[in-house]
Amino acid sequence: MKIDAYSHILPAPYFERMRQLVANPGMFKRWLELPALHDIDVRLRMMEEFGDDYQQVLTLSSPPIEVLATPEQSPGLARLANESMLELCQKYPERFPAFVASLPMNNPDAVFEELDYAIDELGARGVQVFTNVNGKPLDEPEYLEIFERMAQRDLPVWMHPARGPGHADYLTESTSKYEIWWALGWPYETSVAMSRLVFSGILERYPDLKIITHHMGAMIPSLEGRIGLGWSDQLGSRTAEVDYAKLREERLPLPLVDYFRRFYADTALSGSAIGVRCGLDFFGAERVLFGSDCPFDPQGGPMYIREIIRVVDELDITDAERECVYHRNVRGLMRL
Amino acid sequence: MKIDAYSHILPAPYFERMRQLVANPGMFKRWLELPALHDIDVRLRMMEEFGDDYQQVLTLSSPPIEVLATPEQSPGLARLANESMLELCQKYPERFPAFVASLPMNNPDAVFEELDYAIDELGARGVQVFTNVNGKPLDEPEYLEIFERMAQRDLPVWMHPARGPGHADYLTESTSKYEIWWALGWPYETSVAMSRLVFSGILERYPDLKIITHHMGAMIPSLEGRIGLGWSDQLGSRTAEVDYAKLREERLPLPLVDYFRRFYADTALSGSAIGVRCGLDFFGAERVLFGSDCPFDPQGGPMYIREIIRVVDELDITDAERECVYHRNVRGLMRL
Repeated sequence: MKIDAYSHILPAPYFERMRQLVANPGMFKRWLELPALHDIDVRLRMMEEFGDDYQQVLTLSSPPIEVLATPEQSPGLARLANESMLELCQKYPERFPAFVASLPMNNPDAVFEELDYAIDELGARGVQVFTNVNGKPLDEPEYLEIFERMAQRDLPVWMHPARGPGHADYLTESTSKYEIWWALGWPYETSVAMSRLVFSGILERYPDLKIITHHMGAMIPSLEGRIGLGWSDQLGSRTAEVDYAKLREERLPLPLVDYFRRFYADTALSGSAIGVRCGLDFFGAERVLFGSDCPFDPQGGPMYIREIIRVVDELDITDAERECVYHRNVRGLMRL
Repeated sequence: MKIDAYSHILPAPYFERMRQLVANPGMFKRWLELPALHDIDVRLRMMEEFGDDYQQVLTLSSPPIEVLATPEQSPGLARLANESMLELCQKYPERFPAFVASLPMNNPDAVFEELDYAIDELGARGVQVFTNVNGKPLDEPEYLEIFERMAQRDLPVWMHPARGPGHADYLTESTSKYEIWWALGWPYETSVAMSRLVFSGILERYPDLKIITHHMGAMIPSLEGRIGLGWSDQLGSRTAEVDYAKLREERLPLPLVDYFRRFYADTALSGSAIGVRCGLDFFGAERVLFGSDCPFDPQGGPMYIREIIRVVDELDITDAERECVYHRNVRGLMRL
């Protein structure tokens, strides 16, 4: 059994509505080129290659709802996304065992209403957030409350990268060229968001909070040492204005790296073993989930799945650990 | 024998001059707390722990000269740095076998004069640049010429991170807090600079160009797959305005990852084995150099050296490969 913990979809009714909202048709080029993203028949045929025991947890594809829609539009759009994903799960339960709810993050009144509705009424097994909300970091109190509620419900938060605050300017200068914003900017954003969450203290207050980071926790695993002796043990040495010793004492009694290890991470590194081994060394097999980033590969669907299965199959871990990575961990997290 | 390929120094005469240039005395707090950085007696005593066969290549510590000094001041400041480093090498050749020249990067007329003088007259065995020059990326023609000249001289360029273009604004919003600019921003900057150099085509034109990246090539090794199937094989799919296919054809015929593998990388990851193994998997033992980032550790000098030696000693590589990492690679690069 293999449950793909991070694959993306744009259900057809949602895709149609999205098309009406996006003013710039050039933005649509990428999505139109990927029929497995929005055409369910293409998606299902594509999945056949991986046998009957391959399933996908459905999460809504980027761009974030709060980027597409105004605060007036976003509650309806999130509702449409969630009901459309549920429909797919109900119609094809052997392929889509569960979905992850999207939230109208730019409408604070509607966020918790949709969260409750999606989980209690629609049966979503978690929520997805992006690494920032139209530029605002996730450690703003209004967003932290989402994490708190998910900790109380004992269900996971999927965290997907998005262009960061101030990134528009930053991109103009140096990283808009050559799609650096995507290749490196997104992993950077993920790492920054993880850090902001760590420093917020939420992982200290809710040690069992389940946050699933895309792309294997991005920069964090390979920077284990820098986070330890460099950051955790010297925090404040590069800052004159803030008393970080006090913050540590009040909010973060453990070494920083201990909090970073509380995240979960998927194998969506586009089919290279190097980064997956690195992440596995850092998080341990009990926190690594098989995830593909399907269908954003050069073949529009099957290639990342195929390459990542090859990587996971070849990992030097026990069969029991491999089963955890392939399906046990994500089932445990979603309480399926 | 162990030659530390990336350690930092502020020679006393340079440190004195620097103190006059920095208007904000708060900026000096960090450097004053690290006597091994500017007090040669402290530095030499600190090195004794590692025996007679431990040596350091000297590179000037951050901040970059172009941040400290105006274009009028920078040529004199670079000259002072280089002559002071030479003096240390001459006085303590058993500890400092060579130094790496600093350049007045914000003064285009003086850069090449200093480069020639430092290498031909003072005997510098390479030059150091930062990942951007007061916000300008290294693939501007005036900076690329430095890399070309170093390729022609068959000597390496050391590349150290610095805050990036637009980073001031970016920092205000999200990453100034908690020293994220240092912990994650610097590795991100290094990765962006490596990318800009790759896309400039300089590593295609000069396949033997020797660029030594700090902190093990930062994000690049763990993102091998993302660089491959994600970036190299789908470049342009996320961009409507630019013809990247043409750029690839004209400038970069090989897969992008092949160019990224042409960089060299040091072990300065603050003493964790995870990232060093990851970098070694990517670059291979022939391109990894023992480097410590001394003296920027919690003990002000010996701790990173000690921890990184422990990591390198325990790596699952052959003794011949370990010798390459410890001293043969850097000696080859510097033609010592």
